[in-house]
Amino acid sequence: MPKGSGLPQPIKVRGVRALEFPVIEQARGSLTYGEYDRHLPFLPKRYFLVFNVPAGEVRGAHAHRSVHQILLCVKGSCAVGLDDGLSRDEVRLDRPDLGLHIPPMVWATQFDYSSDGVLLVLCSDVYNPDEYISDYEEYLKAMRRA
Amino acid sequence: MPKGSGLPQPIKVRGVRALEFPVIEQARGSLTYGEYDRHLPFLPKRYFLVFNVPAGEVRGAHAHRSVHQILLCVKGSCAVGLDDGLSRDEVRLDRPDLGLHIPPMVWATQFDYSSDGVLLVLCSDVYNPDEYISDYEEYLKAMRRA
Repeated sequence: MPKGSGLPQPIKVRGVRALEFPVIEQARGSLTYGEYDRHLPFLPKRYFLVFNVPAGEVRGAHAHRSVHQILLCVKGSCAVGLDDGLSRDEVRLDRPDLGLHIPPMVWATQFDYSSDGVLLVLCSDVYNPDEYISDYEEYLKAMRRA
Repeated sequence: MPKGSGLPQPIKVRGVRALEFPVIEQARGSLTYGEYDRHLPFLPKRYFLVFNVPAGEVRGAHAHRSVHQILLCVKGSCAVGLDDGLSRDEVRLDRPDLGLHIPPMVWATQFDYSSDGVLLVLCSDVYNPDEYISDYEEYLKAMRRA
């Protein structure tokens, strides 16, 4: 696959960007990387990894009031659903050098994980349940006020 | 597997520590996470992912003068060889919630990747070729001077 192929079209949800990370392919293996602030727009204070997700499960389904996230499917693939209250879009993450920067106040879901799928999420801040919006009606109200 | 099983015995190489990250296992999938500074001893300024490593390949084989690293095998497994100039040890990373903190001035290799193995490395600083020591004799000399 030529480098840079498969980059999603401009994403129709406010502020969400696909990030193309460098990749070095060698006979002894492949490497992809990202650095602050050349490739990463924030210093990650938290990471999490999601794995062993059964087929048909939908995860996420919330927005963050203040936290930025970068999603990378580091093995296998998964789909990300995006919604800003006005527009919706869907991105398939299927290679470890394709990232998705999701800023605050975007409603996001993850679904259709391959059986070997592993999602890595880099977060701009530590876990704080108070900055989650997990009710879609509340999210829409907040977006209308904004 | 009960939580906390399989943690390596105390590692016989100066300053290297196994890190046990939290893991949440649910019917809808598993999640493991790490935060600065509760679990991570530094804010990562760089990450890299290593994948598609052919069987039999050895990677790494260098020390860092100043950079700290945390190694996590986020899919499959790989082995890490460690050497401080006096003692050697070997750790197998085989679950995404088991990390290895390698401080500066430890000679490390990675080998025996499973065919699906993906290694995530979090680094305390951006890439700088000047802080690598890639010659083992030079490394031993630097350790004798220390």
